[in-house]
Amino acid sequence: MNKGLLFVVSGPSGCGKGTVLAEILKDDRIFYSVSATTRSPRPGEADGVNYHFLTKERFEELIGQDGMLEYAEYCGNYYGTPRKPVEDMLSAGKHVILEIEVQGAMKIMEKCPEAVFIFILPPSLKELRRRLNKRGTETEDVIEKRLGEAAGEIKNACKYDYTLINGELSAAVDDLKAIIRAEELNVKNYPNYIDEVLENA
Amino acid sequence: MNKGLLFVVSGPSGCGKGTVLAEILKDDRIFYSVSATTRSPRPGEADGVNYHFLTKERFEELIGQDGMLEYAEYCGNYYGTPRKPVEDMLSAGKHVILEIEVQGAMKIMEKCPEAVFIFILPPSLKELRRRLNKRGTETEDVIEKRLGEAAGEIKNACKYDYTLINGELSAAVDDLKAIIRAEELNVKNYPNYIDEVLENA
Repeated sequence: MNKGLLFVVSGPSGCGKGTVLAEILKDDRIFYSVSATTRSPRPGEADGVNYHFLTKERFEELIGQDGMLEYAEYCGNYYGTPRKPVEDMLSAGKHVILEIEVQGAMKIMEKCPEAVFIFILPPSLKELRRRLNKRGTETEDVIEKRLGEAAGEIKNACKYDYTLINGELSAAVDDLKAIIRAEELNVKNYPNYIDEVLENA
Repeated sequence: MNKGLLFVVSGPSGCGKGTVLAEILKDDRIFYSVSATTRSPRPGEADGVNYHFLTKERFEELIGQDGMLEYAEYCGNYYGTPRKPVEDMLSAGKHVILEIEVQGAMKIMEKCPEAVFIFILPPSLKELRRRLNKRGTETEDVIEKRLGEAAGEIKNACKYDYTLINGELSAAVDDLKAIIRAEELNVKNYPNYIDEVLENA
């Protein structure tokens, strides 16, 4: 059984990464890693779906056991990526997708340098502004703040292995599928394919 | 104008790489690099299609000018890859495919480490034997010799970036397309895409 591959996906708010990933996750060889948090569930949020909701004590216990691939504290709550479900799925031969912001991705890069890092870009900051405006849920001030944050995040995209532009959804989904397939064909990930050809003589 | 990418494709005789490449070359963004040789054209061979047929003097002049990306002497004739058409096409933004045997590919790896190296594998040596038998053009002895050579070549596949198995043609063509697309999305090849997103604010 070959191990699966770990894909780390980042992108600014409004780039549409959730929509792209929803399409990719229709493939049942691919597992989405659910984050853990100590904040309380909001109405409609389910444990194990939106987050794994943990107590502070349990979260800190996991940190102490090196049970978090990465974590951060934000507004008094912990957020992080539990190591075990990721490793279990990889061992079962499934690819795992972590959707995570840039700082978390950089921590994963240290712990799992063999992971594949993908940054989803909007076609332009102008288009990102248009999309955030279209949502109609935020004030002009908040949108300007989001755009500033997005520009800061995008500057880190050069640290990733791949960037893909989410202009048209189907093209972005095809691009992500091409990256996943190419990584499956990459000799550094599965050198054993060569021996298998030679052994069957 | 972004430069194109250089793809170097190898694979043993009978792996079907010609058929896979014929499909890929229907894409006019991709240019096939024709080799040069000093041997005489065989009936039906056309200059610039099967080979660039050069005199020994012209070939040696090109070697002296570093005008060959790689070359070898075989049965008293030179065979090689002229540098200029490759560089011209890359500068014009086209991807270039070099179909070349392992030794030549290793020389290209030294001169052009940024190239992408792809090895096309048969599903197994057993299947390769079946395909060579099916051709019916070679004796049992020649087929055994070919299989021995193929095994030797396949052992070098670990030095390539990617391997793909040509079992079913359409799957192999899709795999090669996925590799080409993923390399287009690879940050090391086109880091400028990130700046373009930021500039259009």
